[in-house]
Amino acid sequence: MKTFNAKINVTLKKSVLDPQGKTILEALHSLGFQDASDVRAGKHFELTLNANNEIDAQNRVKEMCDKLLVNPVIEQYEISIS
Amino acid sequence: MKTFNAKINVTLKKSVLDPQGKTILEALHSLGFQDASDVRAGKHFELTLNANNEIDAQNRVKEMCDKLLVNPVIEQYEISIS
Repeated sequence: MKTFNAKINVTLKKSVLDPQGKTILEALHSLGFQDASDVRAGKHFELTLNANNEIDAQNRVKEMCDKLLVNPVIEQYEISIS
Repeated sequence: MKTFNAKINVTLKKSVLDPQGKTILEALHSLGFQDASDVRAGKHFELTLNANNEIDAQNRVKEMCDKLLVNPVIEQYEISIS
């Protein structure tokens, strides 16, 4: 058993409207950041887990996403294991 | 001017208690994920911006974090530009 660190980014699917991102973009513009566009807001999780190898760890985290962390109807996710 | 994609992960500083992460960890344990520990919950932003080069883009996003996206008292952030 080795210890792995997992980072998970959860974002709304492209087809889903993101009012939070839109509000942040407006705030950025009003602060003078005219060069920014297309802001999307999401969630970030970091966790530690024990697994035999990196592939097991990846699969285990994928299972956590599917069962608890992510709403597959409106959200997508990416996992990085280190 | 080139177009860059920025990804920003905002997490609570290690010294700050994370009740959301603790609750998620308890939920994971009750779902049978005993192999997980140390869950930290945070925010994730993705945005597009125009800049002359990658260093300018990085600095610009850093400025956005310092001015709007991050509360430096309790949060830390990491930026990746592509």
